[in-house]
Amino acid sequence: MSGAPDEFQLIADLFAPLARSYPGALNLTDDVALLAAELGFETAVTVDAMVAGVHFLPADPPDLVARKLVRVNLSDLAAKGARPFAVMLAAAFPRGTDMDWLRRFGDGLAADVGEFGIALIGGDTVSTPGPLTLSLTAFGRVGEGKALLRSGARAGDTIWVSGSIGDGALGLRAAQGQFSQLEASHAAFLAERYRLPRPRVALGPELIGLAHAGMDISDGLVQDLGHLCRASRLGAQVEAGRVPLSSAAQAALAEEHSLLATVLTGGDDYELLFTAPPLASPAILELGTRVGVAVTAIGSMVEGAGVTVLDAAGQAMALGRGGWRHFSATGMGTGA
Amino acid sequence: MSGAPDEFQLIADLFAPLARSYPGALNLTDDVALLAAELGFETAVTVDAMVAGVHFLPADPPDLVARKLVRVNLSDLAAKGARPFAVMLAAAFPRGTDMDWLRRFGDGLAADVGEFGIALIGGDTVSTPGPLTLSLTAFGRVGEGKALLRSGARAGDTIWVSGSIGDGALGLRAAQGQFSQLEASHAAFLAERYRLPRPRVALGPELIGLAHAGMDISDGLVQDLGHLCRASRLGAQVEAGRVPLSSAAQAALAEEHSLLATVLTGGDDYELLFTAPPLASPAILELGTRVGVAVTAIGSMVEGAGVTVLDAAGQAMALGRGGWRHFSATGMGTGA
Repeated sequence: MSGAPDEFQLIADLFAPLARSYPGALNLTDDVALLAAELGFETAVTVDAMVAGVHFLPADPPDLVARKLVRVNLSDLAAKGARPFAVMLAAAFPRGTDMDWLRRFGDGLAADVGEFGIALIGGDTVSTPGPLTLSLTAFGRVGEGKALLRSGARAGDTIWVSGSIGDGALGLRAAQGQFSQLEASHAAFLAERYRLPRPRVALGPELIGLAHAGMDISDGLVQDLGHLCRASRLGAQVEAGRVPLSSAAQAALAEEHSLLATVLTGGDDYELLFTAPPLASPAILELGTRVGVAVTAIGSMVEGAGVTVLDAAGQAMALGRGGWRHFSATGMGTGA
Repeated sequence: MSGAPDEFQLIADLFAPLARSYPGALNLTDDVALLAAELGFETAVTVDAMVAGVHFLPADPPDLVARKLVRVNLSDLAAKGARPFAVMLAAAFPRGTDMDWLRRFGDGLAADVGEFGIALIGGDTVSTPGPLTLSLTAFGRVGEGKALLRSGARAGDTIWVSGSIGDGALGLRAAQGQFSQLEASHAAFLAERYRLPRPRVALGPELIGLAHAGMDISDGLVQDLGHLCRASRLGAQVEAGRVPLSSAAQAALAEEHSLLATVLTGGDDYELLFTAPPLASPAILELGTRVGVAVTAIGSMVEGAGVTVLDAAGQAMALGRGGWRHFSATGMGTGA
């Protein structure tokens, strides 16, 4: 972190306490952080970028922006079975960002550093004439050779998801005030799910030894399952009726059934998608209960290629490509 | 890297070969990269962000933008004595960035991945309505407990710099066409030094065992030496006349002597600044010859605080704060 008065000094003051628990952070006063080697473990590293107006709403509360940034990255680590221990932040703040905004952003970062037991071990802060642009590098610990890869699925594996699907994509619409007919508590639940993902950090590491493959759902269930299929050189068959929905999502679908496509292909779920042999199902259900995260079997990996989603009549649904495209997309999307 | 057609596919095609040498990159087809643990070594990690119009000129050749991004980070690692092995890229490309631009950016990245023997092990690509915004996380290997920290200097240490100082700051002016009276070859040399730093990757790791403290000069010699002084709770005395200047910088100063302040406090040097006991001087000079990088003693660490720069008459020079401020600065600067 570069030193200078005013905003930079404030940032330094806000960030320094977040590094204290990790000696290799060198109190954020050096050019690098130092990660110790632990025999028998690998370090899983991921980076995700977020741009105001693209990945979050410019008016979103600053603390939630910081927390979302942390959480989308921790979700990637959790999906691999890695336990997060540190993050590094590169932030380009618009010129004239006010002190109160920065303070609230720092508060959000501090909240999640505390909640997830991680440390902020370094970063870079610069100014930009453009929108707020953030990137976070996150570090996790995973047993050597144990990480749950996209490529590990086997034909016959059961496909599982954590939590509920579609809340993020519906939540974006709710946050934009598009669900005027929906009960206020449902709309608020969905918007909260969009703004503050819940990375499944307790579940992911426990899946090692049970699951064959894993990833997190950030681009949309169908799209991400497609990625997993390609990496594993398999196909997938999913029953739409088994995809777990929150009460709020069910209420939204009751109003407008065509939203089912949004649920299945919309982004920002940050739930885990994993595959496991059918024999592991009882242990996985028991694990879900133990860590307090719903786990639901939604289909099977099959020989072949591509994702087929079957409707209640057993017919393949036409969902288009599904998932967000980031670069040329004009709407909101996630780069995770 | 998220998959999608068009620009995203091009980026994936350009980047995939850069990952091949590192198995833990998982061919850029997974959510994380996996770093193996090596007993007796630590992983040094650094991140630097660059914004078009702030840290490089928007019209700069795209291959040089990519290479500068890599090099400012490798410079940080070199200063710690770490050998670089990998980088991760988070890139927010403006909407409508053309294919040719991306291809040339990829070429630059490939050139430096090859030149420095590193791998691109992951990243994230998103779109932005704002300027091109890049952040790179770089990983290096360093012996456990051996990294050259800012805090390691001792009173009586000799202060050294690599290469020549001030070329980057003068080079920015040259790149902007401000040196109309300077010989064209000198102006071109300075502009090249601004656009394409030379991280001292051969020198840095060899300083372990010789130097007590190290950092790279990115914010300006005086400013960065000030950082080192604060971290080491010491002061520094530098003789301006001993600060090594390139022929081009000498020519520029001959035209306009007041540029000496720019040389001493301007950013973008990406040279190494290190301190070592006087007894190590012969070995350091021999090392410089061996790796082909000039090394010059410019002063000493002293009890006290702050940086004093003495002119030819032995008088302390008034240099102001020196160094770039990033956040509220209106000019160009580096966030390193």
